[in-house]
Amino acid sequence: MNSSGSESSPAVAAAAAASSSSNHSSNSVPRGLSASSKWAKIMTLQEAMGDQGEGTMTLKATTNGRPRLFYFHARGRAEIIRLIFAQAEVEYDDVRFREPPHAMEDFERLKGEGELPFDQVPILEVDGMVLAQSQAIVRYIARKHGLMGGTELDNAFADMVACGTEDLRQKFTQMIFAKTEQEREQQLQTFSKEVLPRWARYFENLLCQRGGDWFLGSRLTYADLAVYDMMSTITWRLPEAFGPFESLRAHGARVEKLPNIAHWLQTRPDNPL
Amino acid sequence: MNSSGSESSPAVAAAAAASSSSNHSSNSVPRGLSASSKWAKIMTLQEAMGDQGEGTMTLKATTNGRPRLFYFHARGRAEIIRLIFAQAEVEYDDVRFREPPHAMEDFERLKGEGELPFDQVPILEVDGMVLAQSQAIVRYIARKHGLMGGTELDNAFADMVACGTEDLRQKFTQMIFAKTEQEREQQLQTFSKEVLPRWARYFENLLCQRGGDWFLGSRLTYADLAVYDMMSTITWRLPEAFGPFESLRAHGARVEKLPNIAHWLQTRPDNPL
Repeated sequence: MNSSGSESSPAVAAAAAASSSSNHSSNSVPRGLSASSKWAKIMTLQEAMGDQGEGTMTLKATTNGRPRLFYFHARGRAEIIRLIFAQAEVEYDDVRFREPPHAMEDFERLKGEGELPFDQVPILEVDGMVLAQSQAIVRYIARKHGLMGGTELDNAFADMVACGTEDLRQKFTQMIFAKTEQEREQQLQTFSKEVLPRWARYFENLLCQRGGDWFLGSRLTYADLAVYDMMSTITWRLPEAFGPFESLRAHGARVEKLPNIAHWLQTRPDNPL
Repeated sequence: MNSSGSESSPAVAAAAAASSSSNHSSNSVPRGLSASSKWAKIMTLQEAMGDQGEGTMTLKATTNGRPRLFYFHARGRAEIIRLIFAQAEVEYDDVRFREPPHAMEDFERLKGEGELPFDQVPILEVDGMVLAQSQAIVRYIARKHGLMGGTELDNAFADMVACGTEDLRQKFTQMIFAKTEQEREQQLQTFSKEVLPRWARYFENLLCQRGGDWFLGSRLTYADLAVYDMMSTITWRLPEAFGPFESLRAHGARVEKLPNIAHWLQTRPDNPL
């Protein structure tokens, strides 16, 4: 995947590509798409767009009023959107490309619609508008569904925390660009021994500033879900990464115990990343 | 500058470091700090923080109620904040580190305060709170000062456009990581011949969608200023980059003619980046 292909991190795309190409036939239903949630209807691109063959797909075909999220059959840059929808109990269509080797094929067909603002996914189709850029989507739905702060200055604080998770995520996922395994191993060492501890401390400091359960004290916001999502991505590769950071780990446990989040985590498709 | 040192792009820092170290003595007032605007009071870190020697600086010392922006004596990731303040006629303190060789020294002193959420600049100190992450700052002040859209969905559209400028800016500034001059020249070729035309087209398509002067049609938002700022950064190095993109160039000319923006452009310090 080249740098313009998708907002999805290359690490995620690589993991998705590696995850299951050997364990299903080329036309089978992707593993995991049968999982269901109370609010998310998980479907393939073909199901969502009423595919009758080349040239008949239409992105803006929905008439059921549900927002439609389009992404790879992976967590990646879409999972924070799914977590917010789950927590806010929003009904939506969770449209996923097929697994490799058909993932890029589906992505190319969606791009072929000519409606992707930056030829990237995720996109959210909502009220007839195609919205790109995962973080713009996140802020829009968080505001719409009550997962922002109580004041605009608090919203800015949550925004800052969420931007920080993007910084750290980028430092993590850029390791996929290492040219050799040796270089990657070296980068992973630097990340786990230097970068991550420093950044984990930043987040722990911010979490403790207001002395509550959440980054904004007693009020849950999308920033809490963003930090949880970022930690989940990193611990998939580095399970002990946040070991010394008790407040952050306790925060993560609190997120996982939110009933709606717990339900989503139990029923979502079984992707590693 | 290492990756954790500052949100400021390495390209900007390198340019700032190279810009004037040879033309002023080590203790002189940095070139350009005498420039003034109707709304921005440009000052050094020492002026802003009442420096009486090591250990006596305090970040949260302001009592005049003006927001205080802290950054290098450069445009970089602070300029979009300054453009928004200029357009909205907001009075603020534009606090700048001294030029090289003292820039990093000042940055270290500010970090030493222990109040920078991610040890990065820019930060905005507002109402006693220290806000980091340039884009979180941008969204906060744009919303506060009337440079958002008319609806939340329009805000999301503006947000998406601004996120896109960050994507393209990153593709541009990452060239500083090239290990050799030859590699950098090659990357610059790829950027100017492939990446930029594709992305310029994305922006031109989005600009034309609503058929008005601005990305949201008749309504000026911070997204217009963000696109202008991104284009200014790129054309500093590649003057002809946007040549074939008439709508974008006309848009840039419109931004420059906004009276408040024109005033800022005429009076701001003379930094290249």
